[in-house]
Amino acid sequence: MTERLDVVAMGNAIVDVLASVDDAFLDEMGIQKGIMQLIDTARADEIYRNMGPSTEISGGSAANTVAGLAALGARTGYLGKVRDDQLGTIFAHDIRAQGAVYDGPIAPEDAELETARSFILVSPDGQRSMNTYLGIAGQITPDDVDEALMHRADWLYLEGYLFDNADAKEAFRRAIGATRAGGGKVALTVSDPFCVDRHREDFIELISSRVDLLFANEDEILSLFRTDDLETAVAAASEIVECAAITRSEKGALVTSNGNRFEVPTEPQKPVDTTGAGDLFAAGFLFGMVTGRDETIAARMGCAAAGEIIAHVGARPQRKLAELFAEKGLV
Amino acid sequence: MTERLDVVAMGNAIVDVLASVDDAFLDEMGIQKGIMQLIDTARADEIYRNMGPSTEISGGSAANTVAGLAALGARTGYLGKVRDDQLGTIFAHDIRAQGAVYDGPIAPEDAELETARSFILVSPDGQRSMNTYLGIAGQITPDDVDEALMHRADWLYLEGYLFDNADAKEAFRRAIGATRAGGGKVALTVSDPFCVDRHREDFIELISSRVDLLFANEDEILSLFRTDDLETAVAAASEIVECAAITRSEKGALVTSNGNRFEVPTEPQKPVDTTGAGDLFAAGFLFGMVTGRDETIAARMGCAAAGEIIAHVGARPQRKLAELFAEKGLV
Repeated sequence: MTERLDVVAMGNAIVDVLASVDDAFLDEMGIQKGIMQLIDTARADEIYRNMGPSTEISGGSAANTVAGLAALGARTGYLGKVRDDQLGTIFAHDIRAQGAVYDGPIAPEDAELETARSFILVSPDGQRSMNTYLGIAGQITPDDVDEALMHRADWLYLEGYLFDNADAKEAFRRAIGATRAGGGKVALTVSDPFCVDRHREDFIELISSRVDLLFANEDEILSLFRTDDLETAVAAASEIVECAAITRSEKGALVTSNGNRFEVPTEPQKPVDTTGAGDLFAAGFLFGMVTGRDETIAARMGCAAAGEIIAHVGARPQRKLAELFAEKGLV
Repeated sequence: MTERLDVVAMGNAIVDVLASVDDAFLDEMGIQKGIMQLIDTARADEIYRNMGPSTEISGGSAANTVAGLAALGARTGYLGKVRDDQLGTIFAHDIRAQGAVYDGPIAPEDAELETARSFILVSPDGQRSMNTYLGIAGQITPDDVDEALMHRADWLYLEGYLFDNADAKEAFRRAIGATRAGGGKVALTVSDPFCVDRHREDFIELISSRVDLLFANEDEILSLFRTDDLETAVAAASEIVECAAITRSEKGALVTSNGNRFEVPTEPQKPVDTTGAGDLFAAGFLFGMVTGRDETIAARMGCAAAGEIIAHVGARPQRKLAELFAEKGLV
């Protein structure tokens, strides 16, 4: 019998291309700060030609979450599409080297679209502006869903960004079906307020019918329920999903679970690069879930993991998160 | 008329693949700590398969020096061979984005050998063990030498590692000839004690007949003159070259120039990653030369630049070196 996995995630497999920029550069290039923008080849060429020297680190929202979980010792799997090119090789190496089960799908070298990359421009205030060329990552079809992998998952973790892929909704349904058939539960992260804008009705339908645990930040949950009042949004979320974990940057996290509601603070710190903060919050929270902690401890684990990731450039952990949790009395 | 350049460098164009490892990993893989080892495709696959998640940053010894010089505001050019693949695109982008003139040579996408990469394994003590797959970088021929570029150089900076390329010696001669014809001077870095072992006679011949400024660290200069006594090596160096700058890690630098000899200390610090220390020492020293400073100030600039690079992972500067020099009263 095949071994169970704590968390299997599905998302856009991306290599991050990180560079420091000043605000004037964002203005000149017409880039809106703090959000994720999808870009085409021509725009990718334009941004890359104008941006400074960069560092490449495997990224992708759900893949960052899996890397965090694997670094904590959880048994993980990941599904996301790359091409058999140099960046695809880097992506596959890094997630496997972190300890996750990863079998692609890997499109052949002569596939038209390349492995996805995201130009992540980090401002002096630590905020990141993401410009994502989806490439082959955006071509996941329902046939790409490895149902045997999903069947092994205690938790399936879905990345909202995938909604921008043409066939992703059907792929989501297939992945969820396989996970449920194996007795697993389903978590979803909303990913981005503009992604919500593009797919609001589909998100609401999916969350209310098939999701057990919802991750969102403040902007995303407000966008999801078309309100500018956080309490209204939280109440609406608790109507349609068993548990919602809402991150609020330096204000910490707010969680509703089966009608209970509580807040968890973060420790004050000046962020170096906020890339991956939400992804690592989800990693810490899910680690709490899969190790049988209650939602309060899970949320504190989420805040601790997010705190590590914003202290350095890049969205994959640089120190042993288990040690960090031990220092904070969480394990 | 074409603009003059302060420094044009020639070296192996490499993308660094950096990962943290413990000493046990180096033992298991049979990797000797602290040196550069050339590896073939099979060994590259073996090391990559076994090493942890990594970060990719453009590297290459002389290219790091050029990046440092460009970051200081010097007018620079670089010559090193890549393939038209994703890593080659990254290398070309980063050095141009830093401000250097770079025109390859860039081999076509279907060339058999890929862009070079070096797996740089960083130990807890900050030492780095480099495993370099030379790929297309090792295929520089005399015909690849852009004599018009070399003709513009006030200083030509040559990387000793290039000696491992089959046709590099003839390429060196051609580059030196073009630089001399334009009125420029020639600097050489010895690169690695084992590289010296492989090419000792050629190094000595080149240094004594065509080099004005020699860079080496303690191990390299001892290896060059087959001695275990530093004073003997320094005396031998001062016999064959006008100026020699010898780096001694935490002990600072020792310089001989036209019979004068002096030492410059470094500030004590625990290195995070020593990758690029020698490259950035050369950048600081050459910046002193091209801005008309004497060798004492140049050596202090070298030590300051090296101090910045060992304070973080990666061999390209992360902070504005000009500000650092100002803080230390060097500019």
